[in-house]
Amino acid sequence: MQLEFFSHLRCRECGRLYPKEAIHVCEWDFGPLEAVYDYEAIRRHISRDRIESRPPTMWRYREFLPLEGEPSVGTQVGFTPLVRADRLAKALGVREVYVKNDTVNYPTLSFKDRVVAVSLSRAREMGFPVVACASTGNLANSVAANAASVGLESYVLIPADLEASKVLGSLVYGSRVIGIRGPYDKVNRLCSEIAGKYRWAFVNVNLRPYYAEGSKTMGFEIVEQLGWRLPAHTVIPMASGSLLTKIAKSYREMIDTELVEKRPFAIHGAQASGCNPITDAFRKDTELVRPVSKPQTIAKSLAIGTPADGYYAIQTIRKSGGAAEDASDPEIVEGIRLLAETTGIFAETAGGVTVACARKLIDSGKIPKDESLVLCITGHGLKTAEVLSGVLDSPRVIDPSLREFDRLVSSDINRAPLPTRSEG
Amino acid sequence: MQLEFFSHLRCRECGRLYPKEAIHVCEWDFGPLEAVYDYEAIRRHISRDRIESRPPTMWRYREFLPLEGEPSVGTQVGFTPLVRADRLAKALGVREVYVKNDTVNYPTLSFKDRVVAVSLSRAREMGFPVVACASTGNLANSVAANAASVGLESYVLIPADLEASKVLGSLVYGSRVIGIRGPYDKVNRLCSEIAGKYRWAFVNVNLRPYYAEGSKTMGFEIVEQLGWRLPAHTVIPMASGSLLTKIAKSYREMIDTELVEKRPFAIHGAQASGCNPITDAFRKDTELVRPVSKPQTIAKSLAIGTPADGYYAIQTIRKSGGAAEDASDPEIVEGIRLLAETTGIFAETAGGVTVACARKLIDSGKIPKDESLVLCITGHGLKTAEVLSGVLDSPRVIDPSLREFDRLVSSDINRAPLPTRSEG
Ligand SMILES: Cc1ncc(COP(=O)(O)O)c(C=O)c1O
Ligand SMILES: Cc1ncc(COP(=O)(O)O)c(C=O)c1O
Ligand SMILES: [Zn+2]
Ligand SMILES: [Zn+2]
Repeated sequence: MQLEFFSHLRCRECGRLYPKEAIHVCEWDFGPLEAVYDYEAIRRHISRDRIESRPPTMWRYREFLPLEGEPSVGTQVGFTPLVRADRLAKALGVREVYVKNDTVNYPTLSFKDRVVAVSLSRAREMGFPVVACASTGNLANSVAANAASVGLESYVLIPADLEASKVLGSLVYGSRVIGIRGPYDKVNRLCSEIAGKYRWAFVNVNLRPYYAEGSKTMGFEIVEQLGWRLPAHTVIPMASGSLLTKIAKSYREMIDTELVEKRPFAIHGAQASGCNPITDAFRKDTELVRPVSKPQTIAKSLAIGTPADGYYAIQTIRKSGGAAEDASDPEIVEGIRLLAETTGIFAETAGGVTVACARKLIDSGKIPKDESLVLCITGHGLKTAEVLSGVLDSPRVIDPSLREFDRLVSSDINRAPLPTRSEG
Repeated sequence: MQLEFFSHLRCRECGRLYPKEAIHVCEWDFGPLEAVYDYEAIRRHISRDRIESRPPTMWRYREFLPLEGEPSVGTQVGFTPLVRADRLAKALGVREVYVKNDTVNYPTLSFKDRVVAVSLSRAREMGFPVVACASTGNLANSVAANAASVGLESYVLIPADLEASKVLGSLVYGSRVIGIRGPYDKVNRLCSEIAGKYRWAFVNVNLRPYYAEGSKTMGFEIVEQLGWRLPAHTVIPMASGSLLTKIAKSYREMIDTELVEKRPFAIHGAQASGCNPITDAFRKDTELVRPVSKPQTIAKSLAIGTPADGYYAIQTIRKSGGAAEDASDPEIVEGIRLLAETTGIFAETAGGVTVACARKLIDSGKIPKDESLVLCITGHGLKTAEVLSGVLDSPRVIDPSLREFDRLVSSDINRAPLPTRSEG
């Protein structure tokens, strides 16, 4: 299937067209470049039935992705569960909550497998022998794994102080893992310099226009899994702000190609209080995003002080009638526990941020109690296990004796049955 | 949909029928009870088209599962990727290898979510207020998570010395986690005593006939994902031996209901050398499984010294023309790395056991080089991260400077491009 829907890159600022190469900013105004599609042709070509007849992966939305040929990396990524979470809804005091569960995304347990599937497939179309990235952890895991699966050489650059699982989850695939002393912004700047010198595919630098489109598939899937219906509210964690802008784009594209009926959808952004440049700008009612030079949060995957798409994220939130929130470290941990105890889904810190911010948006009335709500849970809890150490009770340890067990259970009788603290 | 295909339990030994209650052994001969279906009715009712038209979860094989009504727990479990792994095939020296990837099973990253979806759905049909299990770790994670998702109270009993992630991955859901001093067999015996006293649903004790059937879905999916074709060889890790016998059963059921063409299929078993009661009995050409009283292996999830289904596992392996192997701790780690570096799939120790044993079976000619081969990879690597500590190189750490990066890369030039050691 050689598809003709994707034709060019275009500057978001001045609209100039560029060929679909490994470039990401406009030569005139440094605006970011974005993939251009022929939506009219897509509309004629695609239908709900057609999509539903395809395998359950992100590639069922192939027409909206910027490749020339068939994907060759990450061919099984996506179509993760959307779970109706009634116990969580009750705890949050709303009618209807859905969790989009990318903690089980394939292969590396975060939504980043989506952007990497697209960008590495594109890197191979372009003939790059080496792939690389600047990452707060999850992207590194996904580049390392997906590169290994097809025998591409990879370099992943990360802040030197990431969580143990995030580091291990890149090393195990045989990727070259390089820790950089300093926050993510320094890693990113260094990667721009490297990309200028080495002919490598940096998925989120020179291949960013391709990479970013992959995030749209999270939005497409949400709409399909809701029964071809737009959610009234979507809460999305923000680091660079790319995922948020792309989910909004996916909703618009589905409206434009008549896959879903038009209705208002509010897009809400979630950050950690210790690195909240986008939320802070939203609150101050400005589009000028003030960099956070020293992020201080347990949500390391979201710790980007100078978010590349911060400006667009704010615009998206505002235009859609959404809001931005942030969450402190204890609130993040509480969010992780609430989600786990009510849904059985164990999320990393970014998921805790999403849940905690959703709660605040509900409590402040920015998300009404009787409208449909989707929470984007983007990475697995085992990736940031250290934040729970010392927080949860330890297991009780006994000898293998029924007497000891009886004693333990009867001492339990005074505890409420399954303590979902947050509901009580 | 009230399905009538599942009618009774039946003793595997004497064939006596029992009502479908919370019982698991025959009163006459202590033989294990198994679910009985009307395969002739299923054959008339089901078809490939019908199955393919259903949502991508394990429940598309609903007719072969022992529930009375619709599932109410774990409704989105299963249909994990089956990946063609050509780089792994090359490393192993065979033509065609597929990896069944339950490391991304939903919600708790192991195949145990399949057995728990069935057994907790059944526990609710039977009205149990509390669910429980004896576990080497993964089952505990899954019972805890799935119980939380529906608000069931849960107790999970585990050996006190399990991996940190396995313990955390039960605690986080608010389950009551009880560590027992001693090996798994002691945990299991205690649970039998508890089940005799408390009216709780122990998924792998009094609900074992329902629980065990869930494992069949891994086999059904493999066959469908191979394009409705039986693999010539399947390698399966063994603890109690249940998964192995149930995958063989799933293949037979698909033949019997004419979903797949009959052909020989060899079932191979994999254990850790430090706890290899089934492999040992296979080697000694006996069906008498000698208990391992002190398991000594990093594959803690497989460390069952007295395997409940060991006898049936040996029979299954032998009758199918398969073989059993075992792997030492260093071989297990090597297996994890080989899989990660060639496929991008990061497995726990049980996956390392499967890969290492597959390699031995190939090297000894028990798996021919030109026949189709499926490896069952049953749990995620972040669950047993500690086995890699000190094994992988640490990240190289530099300042955010292009000069330092250049130096690092040029020092790399003497390294072979991406060192898949195991291929080289
Ligand atoms: C788990 C997780 N969620 C959300 C995000 C936000 O991504 P974006 O940079 O697209 O805003 C990241 C970024 O690394 C992440 O790792
Ligand atoms: C990851 C993993 N694989 C395989 C098995 C084997 O299961 P069975 O007891 O059915 O042989 C287990 C059992 O706990 C497990 O945790
Ligand atoms: Zn421009
Ligand atoms: Zn009997």
